[in-house]
Amino acid sequence: MSLPLKGITVLEFSQYLAGPYAGLRLADLGARVIKIERPKGGDACRQLATKDLWVDGDSLLFHTINRNKESFCADLKQAEDLAQVKKLIAKADVITHNFRPGVMEKIGLDYEAVKAIKPDIIYAQVSGYGNTGPWVNKPGQDLLAQSLSGVTWLTGDVEGGPVPLGLAIADMLCGTHLGQGILAALVRRARHKIGAKVEASLLESMVDFQFEGLTTFLNNGQQAPQRSATANAHALLGAPYGIYQTADDYLAIAMVDLADLASALECPAIDLPQSQAFSQRETLKANLQKHLLSQSTSHWLARLRARGIWASEVLNYQQLLKHPAFEALAMPLTVQRPNRTRVVTTRCPIRFNNQTLRSIKAAPALGAHTNAIAEELLCDL
Amino acid sequence: MSLPLKGITVLEFSQYLAGPYAGLRLADLGARVIKIERPKGGDACRQLATKDLWVDGDSLLFHTINRNKESFCADLKQAEDLAQVKKLIAKADVITHNFRPGVMEKIGLDYEAVKAIKPDIIYAQVSGYGNTGPWVNKPGQDLLAQSLSGVTWLTGDVEGGPVPLGLAIADMLCGTHLGQGILAALVRRARHKIGAKVEASLLESMVDFQFEGLTTFLNNGQQAPQRSATANAHALLGAPYGIYQTADDYLAIAMVDLADLASALECPAIDLPQSQAFSQRETLKANLQKHLLSQSTSHWLARLRARGIWASEVLNYQQLLKHPAFEALAMPLTVQRPNRTRVVTTRCPIRFNNQTLRSIKAAPALGAHTNAIAEELLCDL
Repeated sequence: MSLPLKGITVLEFSQYLAGPYAGLRLADLGARVIKIERPKGGDACRQLATKDLWVDGDSLLFHTINRNKESFCADLKQAEDLAQVKKLIAKADVITHNFRPGVMEKIGLDYEAVKAIKPDIIYAQVSGYGNTGPWVNKPGQDLLAQSLSGVTWLTGDVEGGPVPLGLAIADMLCGTHLGQGILAALVRRARHKIGAKVEASLLESMVDFQFEGLTTFLNNGQQAPQRSATANAHALLGAPYGIYQTADDYLAIAMVDLADLASALECPAIDLPQSQAFSQRETLKANLQKHLLSQSTSHWLARLRARGIWASEVLNYQQLLKHPAFEALAMPLTVQRPNRTRVVTTRCPIRFNNQTLRSIKAAPALGAHTNAIAEELLCDL
Repeated sequence: MSLPLKGITVLEFSQYLAGPYAGLRLADLGARVIKIERPKGGDACRQLATKDLWVDGDSLLFHTINRNKESFCADLKQAEDLAQVKKLIAKADVITHNFRPGVMEKIGLDYEAVKAIKPDIIYAQVSGYGNTGPWVNKPGQDLLAQSLSGVTWLTGDVEGGPVPLGLAIADMLCGTHLGQGILAALVRRARHKIGAKVEASLLESMVDFQFEGLTTFLNNGQQAPQRSATANAHALLGAPYGIYQTADDYLAIAMVDLADLASALECPAIDLPQSQAFSQRETLKANLQKHLLSQSTSHWLARLRARGIWASEVLNYQQLLKHPAFEALAMPLTVQRPNRTRVVTTRCPIRFNNQTLRSIKAAPALGAHTNAIAEELLCDL
């Protein structure tokens, strides 16, 4: 199978997570992604370690995000390097960057300048808070974008303070949106031979992520979503939606008819009309939590499954990774570095023509491909 | 500006959130999206209300997800209706569905059958847990997918139980991945005139979302990520990363050098070497939390901003929506129904050629476009 983006070249000036996550997905889908990195240090993510874990001098995090890419070193402040980069741009299809406003203009690689080099270029940029307004120069960082977006008041139970999602959700969503914009622009370019500028930002992606909650807020007299006191899992949904403690573990229960649930669990305390599932959710959830503590997760699951009620156990990483259902998906992907170091990571979540996309190319050492790319693409002797 | 997907027609057999969210983004980007709905009830999301909110008989949630689409009614169990749908397929570019395994085969609209009607069709399907393994017939529902994916052990502080993210994260991510796969297939089709089958699932998207945590787990002797006891915001990052309570409100602090932070806050109790930010994070975060309780958020923010340290206030919806930075982005979007009912929702987060994408077409009433589409596309007299 030829991968869908075979033949597309992306120059990735982006650092950290959002832009490089877009680049990773384009690479998975078949694009050639070349990181353009500073000679001193490269992508700052190389030095950003999680849990103090490193592989061959770069953070494991960098390896996770940048597998299946090449690295080309250039100092954009040096005329000679900049001239080389401009030659690369002339042969590229897409460029991505996440520089602060004004930086690319100063270097001379803003959209208009790049378009003069390559008229049908797709120029994609990530920012923290969009391209206008008082936050335009604020640091574009995941936790800060979460904190400003309102999302921290949707997770956790109501008596607690704001709860950030424990992953870089703003970066990940912004990276997927940037990827969508780039791909849509490539569709248009393939049909109409014109390029485009594409922008996404952490904050706008976080607002889109909350479109259910914000639309409710905007059409409901600006009443803020209220988390429940027990087992909150979605501030806008009624009982029983949530995760509950049992005698030995936990149990997730999704949207379920209250009468069915009361009968399956022999719990008359939650047998109210379905129309009261939202308005009475505090009492219902508290009663349900109390009842579920009396027996084990497997006891309750057997009863719920017998009735076809939507419920499940709550797994941790150890349990998930040894589960036959996870093994069947073959998500882990072992990539191999030229020095034979191996890193186990996870594959692209998209399947294409019944196949998973499993490039085993590891993340590049800083500048590993500078010479080869220069010979291949910059040789104009 | 011509929108990038102008001229592309999508038939959306998908219901609820993941597939229709992919369709919404394709519509934002210029595609014509036609929902194919059962005459009795249509997309089940029409009856799934959040907070008991309804607009013209359909849930506000349905309106949020399905703005900018058309609705065509067809009973796929009736030969005449099915024949009409097959004629529509012959004129479509993309179809999406989220039926359980086997349903489309039974109807006669599986990929091979559809490809026989339209050889270059892009056939996109959403499932809960992929196309193989023991969970293949399990209900594909957001909270259950979260609970099985391990993600609930990453959010909240360590002494608590599993904490689900308070939004439909699995649906949203899966919808963005499906959209990326469809767009990549459209790029290939524009260049090579061939269609493709594209698949995404809630679980695979949740695994990809955790690629940082899972890669760490897989390369670190399968040690599970451990949430911190105070201000957990990312199980893999050291102090001070988190949201803290102050004398009057909350304060988010991102990655910061400990010595800089200790100096800015006059808090010697956190002045440890940076190399201990992860290993000593419990003590550091506890000491920092205690210190921050002594003054207000604005007091601390003034000191942190003076040093350029990455920190911010924590906003709720009321505060966010009246903030000039949010107003500058013009995210709210008012859509209008034919009967003049208005719904305020949020726009597409992607900017294209410096413009936001702001179609004001509202969600369709069930079957609102059946006759018009039949006249336009099915007329073969």
